Amino acid sequence: MNVIADLCIVPLGVGVSVSTYVAACERILLDAGLTVQLHAYGTNIEGDWETVFAAIRRCHEAVHKMGAPRITTTLKFGTRTDRDQHMADKVASVKAKLEAGLA
Amino acid sequence: MNVIADLCIVPLGVGVSVSTYVAACERILLDAGLTVQLHAYGTNIEGDWETVFAAIRRCHEAVHKMGAPRITTTLKFGTRTDRDQHMADKVASVKAKLEAGLA
Amino acid sequence: MNVIADLCIVPLGVGVSVSTYVAACERILLDAGLTVQLHAYGTNIEGDWETVFAAIRRCHEAVHKMGAPRITTTLKFGTRTDRDQHMADKVASVKAKLEAGLA
Amino acid sequence: MNVIADLCIVPLGVGVSVSTYVAACERILLDAGLTVQLHAYGTNIEGDWETVFAAIRRCHEAVHKMGAPRITTTLKFGTRTDRDQHMADKVASVKAKLEAGLA
Repeated sequence: MNVIADLCIVPLGVGVSVSTYVAACERILLDAGLTVQLHAYGTNIEGDWETVFAAIRRCHEAVHKMGAPRITTTLKFGTRTDRDQHMADKVASVKAKLEAGLA
Repeated sequence: MNVIADLCIVPLGVGVSVSTYVAACERILLDAGLTVQLHAYGTNIEGDWETVFAAIRRCHEAVHKMGAPRITTTLKFGTRTDRDQHMADKVASVKAKLEAGLA
Repeated sequence: MNVIADLCIVPLGVGVSVSTYVAACERILLDAGLTVQLHAYGTNIEGDWETVFAAIRRCHEAVHKMGAPRITTTLKFGTRTDRDQHMADKVASVKAKLEAGLA
Repeated sequence: MNVIADLCIVPLGVGVSVSTYVAACERILLDAGLTVQLHAYGTNIEGDWETVFAAIRRCHEAVHKMGAPRITTTLKFGTRTDRDQHMADKVASVKAKLEAGLA
């Protein structure tokens, strides 16, 4: 089962700067062979369900090992059975409508 | 690794009434032996990481089988290494402060 | 426009214990006359759109004043035009299906 | 108060294809003069609190007018008092650490 997800990991108890932890998670997601796209409030991820969730678990484990005693994460994820869809399709579909003056 | 989560599964393509799908997911979570507490915008879940995420996968599979061609889910989840914490502790801690007039 | 929401405010830079901040927000939401129900990963809120969002803004302002230099919040919110729906209806609808053995 | 947000609006009762509704919201956000960046699971938004939340309200109103009887939205938003931060800063900070081999 393919999944498109959006991951936002927030370490607590380590101050206000979290980019070091986010970068470590990016590395883990990339090393897992997932399609990954960082944005300003999280990271888009695409891949097989098991691969995605195993990588997210490794992110939590890594952020704890880096010193964060507590983590709260917000994750959106979508699956569909009607057709294949990839991250780039979702963005392209909206942009095409905007450019065609349909919105 | 223990996890406290909050799950909100939204089936698309099946109209505006989603309670049948949510009820099916509650059943799956309860049958998995997880601590489960339904609320008005999702379900609190507590348990071992693997058990929680395996049950969530079964929820997506079941909702697709019930006829939803597309699902979008919002999940919050937290882990901590500094101490054990359970769902009831989180609520009790806030309520105690409210009742003590500290807020 | 009526809105049912689920609010989870996370202060950063103040350590791992956040219940004091959550309790302050509960107080603000209650004082705004909103329907409020605390759970283990956030707070359900129901009310008029303007009242709900004005209260959430006061929560952010209060948590900053209490000393949190950074806040990240996850909010789910729903509106509908087909019929009135209240927080208790959403929970009752799922529970009825579970108890009827429909799930 | 400046806010950086991530908006994901999901119309229910209109089938599985939601890009027309998302495009309409992009148009509203752009017309409000906000900094806007579409991604595969939502839209990053930056601006003054009142402008951001007024535009989000107009998105809900527009999506209802386009025919969706029910909407469920997931919104993340952050504020900080310690320093100015913009959307591009957040991405650049993580990328710099990745490129420096620090992750």
